[in-house]
Amino acid sequence: MSFNTFGHLFRVTTFGESHGPAIGCVVDGCPPRIPLSEADIQPYLDKRRPGQSRFTTQRQEPDTVRILSGVFTDGDSGQPVTTGAPIALMIENVDQRSKDYSAIKDSYRPGHAGYTCDVKYGLQDDRGGGRASPRDTAMRVAAGAIARKVVPGLSVRAALIQMGPHKIDREAWDWAEVERNPFFCPDAKAAATFADFLDGVRKQGSSVGAIIEVVAEGVPPGLGAPIYGKLDGDLAGAVMGINAVKGVEIGAGFAAAMLSGEDNADEMRVGNDGRPRFLSNNAGGILGGISTGQPVVLRFVVKPTSSILTPRKTVDRYGNETEVMTKGRHDPCVGIRAVPIGEAMVACVIADHYLRQRGQVGETPAWPFKKPAV
Amino acid sequence: MSFNTFGHLFRVTTFGESHGPAIGCVVDGCPPRIPLSEADIQPYLDKRRPGQSRFTTQRQEPDTVRILSGVFTDGDSGQPVTTGAPIALMIENVDQRSKDYSAIKDSYRPGHAGYTCDVKYGLQDDRGGGRASPRDTAMRVAAGAIARKVVPGLSVRAALIQMGPHKIDREAWDWAEVERNPFFCPDAKAAATFADFLDGVRKQGSSVGAIIEVVAEGVPPGLGAPIYGKLDGDLAGAVMGINAVKGVEIGAGFAAAMLSGEDNADEMRVGNDGRPRFLSNNAGGILGGISTGQPVVLRFVVKPTSSILTPRKTVDRYGNETEVMTKGRHDPCVGIRAVPIGEAMVACVIADHYLRQRGQVGETPAWPFKKPAV
Amino acid sequence: MSFNTFGHLFRVTTFGESHGPAIGCVVDGCPPRIPLSEADIQPYLDKRRPGQSRFTTQRQEPDTVRILSGVFTDGDSGQPVTTGAPIALMIENVDQRSKDYSAIKDSYRPGHAGYTCDVKYGLQDDRGGGRASPRDTAMRVAAGAIARKVVPGLSVRAALIQMGPHKIDREAWDWAEVERNPFFCPDAKAAATFADFLDGVRKQGSSVGAIIEVVAEGVPPGLGAPIYGKLDGDLAGAVMGINAVKGVEIGAGFAAAMLSGEDNADEMRVGNDGRPRFLSNNAGGILGGISTGQPVVLRFVVKPTSSILTPRKTVDRYGNETEVMTKGRHDPCVGIRAVPIGEAMVACVIADHYLRQRGQVGETPAWPFKKPAV
Amino acid sequence: MSFNTFGHLFRVTTFGESHGPAIGCVVDGCPPRIPLSEADIQPYLDKRRPGQSRFTTQRQEPDTVRILSGVFTDGDSGQPVTTGAPIALMIENVDQRSKDYSAIKDSYRPGHAGYTCDVKYGLQDDRGGGRASPRDTAMRVAAGAIARKVVPGLSVRAALIQMGPHKIDREAWDWAEVERNPFFCPDAKAAATFADFLDGVRKQGSSVGAIIEVVAEGVPPGLGAPIYGKLDGDLAGAVMGINAVKGVEIGAGFAAAMLSGEDNADEMRVGNDGRPRFLSNNAGGILGGISTGQPVVLRFVVKPTSSILTPRKTVDRYGNETEVMTKGRHDPCVGIRAVPIGEAMVACVIADHYLRQRGQVGETPAWPFKKPAV
Repeated sequence: MSFNTFGHLFRVTTFGESHGPAIGCVVDGCPPRIPLSEADIQPYLDKRRPGQSRFTTQRQEPDTVRILSGVFTDGDSGQPVTTGAPIALMIENVDQRSKDYSAIKDSYRPGHAGYTCDVKYGLQDDRGGGRASPRDTAMRVAAGAIARKVVPGLSVRAALIQMGPHKIDREAWDWAEVERNPFFCPDAKAAATFADFLDGVRKQGSSVGAIIEVVAEGVPPGLGAPIYGKLDGDLAGAVMGINAVKGVEIGAGFAAAMLSGEDNADEMRVGNDGRPRFLSNNAGGILGGISTGQPVVLRFVVKPTSSILTPRKTVDRYGNETEVMTKGRHDPCVGIRAVPIGEAMVACVIADHYLRQRGQVGETPAWPFKKPAV
Repeated sequence: MSFNTFGHLFRVTTFGESHGPAIGCVVDGCPPRIPLSEADIQPYLDKRRPGQSRFTTQRQEPDTVRILSGVFTDGDSGQPVTTGAPIALMIENVDQRSKDYSAIKDSYRPGHAGYTCDVKYGLQDDRGGGRASPRDTAMRVAAGAIARKVVPGLSVRAALIQMGPHKIDREAWDWAEVERNPFFCPDAKAAATFADFLDGVRKQGSSVGAIIEVVAEGVPPGLGAPIYGKLDGDLAGAVMGINAVKGVEIGAGFAAAMLSGEDNADEMRVGNDGRPRFLSNNAGGILGGISTGQPVVLRFVVKPTSSILTPRKTVDRYGNETEVMTKGRHDPCVGIRAVPIGEAMVACVIADHYLRQRGQVGETPAWPFKKPAV
Repeated sequence: MSFNTFGHLFRVTTFGESHGPAIGCVVDGCPPRIPLSEADIQPYLDKRRPGQSRFTTQRQEPDTVRILSGVFTDGDSGQPVTTGAPIALMIENVDQRSKDYSAIKDSYRPGHAGYTCDVKYGLQDDRGGGRASPRDTAMRVAAGAIARKVVPGLSVRAALIQMGPHKIDREAWDWAEVERNPFFCPDAKAAATFADFLDGVRKQGSSVGAIIEVVAEGVPPGLGAPIYGKLDGDLAGAVMGINAVKGVEIGAGFAAAMLSGEDNADEMRVGNDGRPRFLSNNAGGILGGISTGQPVVLRFVVKPTSSILTPRKTVDRYGNETEVMTKGRHDPCVGIRAVPIGEAMVACVIADHYLRQRGQVGETPAWPFKKPAV
Repeated sequence: MSFNTFGHLFRVTTFGESHGPAIGCVVDGCPPRIPLSEADIQPYLDKRRPGQSRFTTQRQEPDTVRILSGVFTDGDSGQPVTTGAPIALMIENVDQRSKDYSAIKDSYRPGHAGYTCDVKYGLQDDRGGGRASPRDTAMRVAAGAIARKVVPGLSVRAALIQMGPHKIDREAWDWAEVERNPFFCPDAKAAATFADFLDGVRKQGSSVGAIIEVVAEGVPPGLGAPIYGKLDGDLAGAVMGINAVKGVEIGAGFAAAMLSGEDNADEMRVGNDGRPRFLSNNAGGILGGISTGQPVVLRFVVKPTSSILTPRKTVDRYGNETEVMTKGRHDPCVGIRAVPIGEAMVACVIADHYLRQRGQVGETPAWPFKKPAV
């Protein structure tokens, strides 16, 4: 709806520029009486924070989040809980080296939003990317931490599964491994390959793309809608809205082009728990825009950053042809830092649909239904 | 917010089930004084209409659209124009063979929305897919026809570029060819291959997926926003919201994972017309969520339909394991009919952003900007 | 956001002009499995329908409503129920005497939307008021009939309590009387006075204003929000949005200016049913934007219609001074027909907030709360 | 849409509790390149700030606003301007005496939101009214200061025209006088009466209601819409959403009940400037939901505050009957401080509709229209 609000019942409005005094967000619509403190949010921010290995930008941002509203210590429970009022979060910016950009401020960096922001708004916010900076993604991650608490039993995890030409071995997938390497890679061998490869990219002052996979488990069946409020449509919009993302797919994704109807459709049986059991998950947990109860599986691609140390042909804002090169800190593979952001966006969309479903439908009789008497 | 409205300033609300009396939509927010009559809409519906070749379902729907409101013959211009009031469109359903489905109504078809709709709403609308039916896409196409008229100079075209394992030769791309074969394929040779391939699929009662490419030309630079109102995010959400779509990518898309920053970023020069000229279009016409003025290029994948003639394992709504098979008419490659629908969704998103940009920004000084006096 | 949609989770989008082929609406977000057929809606339309007494316009509109979507006969219950899909309603226009207006089409009627619509949209929809016609209110009434079924136990009634200078005696209030006179007046004596008075107005070709009171009982406590989603704010917006309404007040309303804090605040006791009992209702059932559980009481004023038989000074669209007079059918007191419309808007707002509350909060422990153990 | 967002294209999202660390808002959708600094906002906050005379609460809040985002010093103009990005504003709370409320925290104050917030959210935010506190209105005023800059030529002023039973003499109206007395009263004699009257109320620990009139000049004709996006509907919703407001009327308002159609409708002539001239303004500047170009005139009533020094019958949250009395600081007439808030809400609504009109319609040919050639 708005240009800076995301979601419907679980609504996130973000603000802030990379080199202004602070960034922040307002999470509106969160149910009351959910235990919440900064300690629930900070770990996710720490995952996203740059400068933690030689593979991400050396910009140092402690990214310490502060809750400004919407939480208070309840007399009944004695712990901080949400009140139902909007939850404002703020992170002060501490590393505002805007001078890095002054030399190139009138020249558009190829592949960067400088040109499009200028032709849209008629001005250049020359402070490190202004609003278009990936700095804003910290607030997406913070909001996602709250979203996770809204849906009981929800787990959202992500992993980097391809860097440049190098793919993981899916058979070797180990979620525990994701926490052990600087790439969020679920395959230890691939992580070693990524490290070598990315060192080379970094030393050349170049950059490379990546593919991330997000898996959400514990998504209740019935979230979404058959037409415009589709869970997959909203997920795709949310994830494509992350900086530098150029594609998104769900379940079998683009590979579905090559499948037959027999191979694609996930057959169903009755599970030992009496609930439906699917024999495969080409649907990626979503059928007809509505969650099936299977894990929601989504992949997205992050392009290589345009901030590279090689001079590139461009124009400036006054009509002259010129060359431009980004000096200083850069991210050889921004896809790495997109991993927790992808998780967060998926969590926000699911939380939103969880509340929407509760609003419209309330309690539904669960499958199997009772046969009506004849 | 709503489950059945799409867009913000150019808003489309659709209604109707495949086997109810009618389907329709309300297009709200359309600017006034745009010439519009049924003749502007019907050709696009005719393109989407099934039963035009042996390669689509034989369901016969004349799909004759009727404008119920929002247009009147202006005294000044003497022709029918939009008034600024909501434009309601309606198509009466004439081929409501709901008995085709009665045998299987309590069993969920694998890969079909029957199960998810049931666990969401607690009831089975057994009339040919109910709301989840692709019947609704006729209204998307109709709305798209109006959207095209909102943005001066806009052209949105699409083509089927892959069917099953068969891809087109991009060197052979000919837009004129798209009108000449039943697949909307821009490569005559590939179209012949598709025909042979799909005949085989059809005879087996099977189905197959496809990939469609949409190209929007004449998109003004500056549409979109750097964060949540991103043009690419909204396009992805819109296109993923089409029935059976499982993935969407923009510009270089998933291939960007393998590109270096040097190869990916589109360099800029000054064109002969004094406007910026890009030396490539890996961005697909969108940088930082905002249109560059280059063609917007988007691809999406359509899964094979789940309505196939082979028996499949499933469960019914009362907890029993069973098998199900779809009898009667079916679409061996629903991707074909998705071509005009993809065009329509892209047109709607662009029209919406065109109005949003005009609302927030009004007139922007065009590039190149005037250098301020020192 | 939209200019023609009302509500958030219970959303009503209307369309149609008074002299076009049809008017209609789409009610989106209605919960599934609510029994609904045309018979639930038609009686409310019949109440609003003009031409039922000599005191309303003689325009004859049978106003027969047809449900186009969103309802089907459930196999489980055997009766027509909502499916959760959008419910489209349509009424064909049968009495389209647009020639009545042709003589005055270029002259703006004082007090009428013709001038403002023209300067807004740049054209004159000369068909009987176009979109601004009160014809649209039929769809508000229809949507209200559905809204009433969404909130269990809700009752919304209204009455005309003042016509011109003549007020009812509140001591004589009898809801049963409202059904017995053509003014929806709860005081039989006042109704007789109204009849005499309005006959005089009508014979002079003049018109007169009125005040209507709406009372909603069975509104659950807790609907609304402390800031922008206030129940009273949304009610005021909804009711002021009815044609010709110029003021709205809740509870003590404008009289609260003269009250002291002691007299205004409604004291509380514990009722015999163990629930809170208020000793007065100056709040009109709403405190801090949230329903108290008391009846919601709201009043609004309807101005006299501008369609009168006396010539009036005006200008035409081409810059000339002129005079204008409305010929033909007119409503001496449009406030009468506003009674069921006011009810409907209040019902829609309450249904919307009922779903919003369920979405955000779900189940709340009811008052009295359990004292936490120390 | 949201519970804490207001507006559509000019969108204000507020957050914060009276006794939390800060309150703030995010203004999204503001056009770029508008000169803006804290100095444009602070004067309006200073007007609203309590503790400036003996007639408002002695709570001391410096209310110093800080812009956190959305503004930067433009290289072209050399001054701080809006960028088109969301503008975040924050005010740190400095006077958080929450202990004032601890004695009464489990008892509901009659006429106060404590009870309704508790039954809605299932908890008591006992810090001075929590989210329902009038503290939030500071952010409405701040947002209003930005809104004023969005619409060229717009002037929005308000005045207190009735306190308790005492009304101003409208013949004595002098806008300059509004700045000279602590009541924002446009009539010097009435201001003296108000002072005497309110001193008595204050000494008794009582409170009293008031009526405020807002006048917006320079509103372009054509803002609003004939049905749900009505300017008057949105104004009514906005103003009724201010704390303690119980009624709102536009133009002739409730007095229109007693007018005849002849007396109510504003006749039109051609003004000396060639633009339409109205001979009266009973419409209050709005016809059919759309602005006429006349001043928009709106009145609203503010109830007496429920925080009074007299013991009142009530219940507590655990089901016991009790009495409650507010100690400490209180506002004998909260209507005084509502004056700048009313202005702000009206400015926000007009700015929103200004952008909406530009979005949908763009440039309209102004009245008078050119006669088409025959």
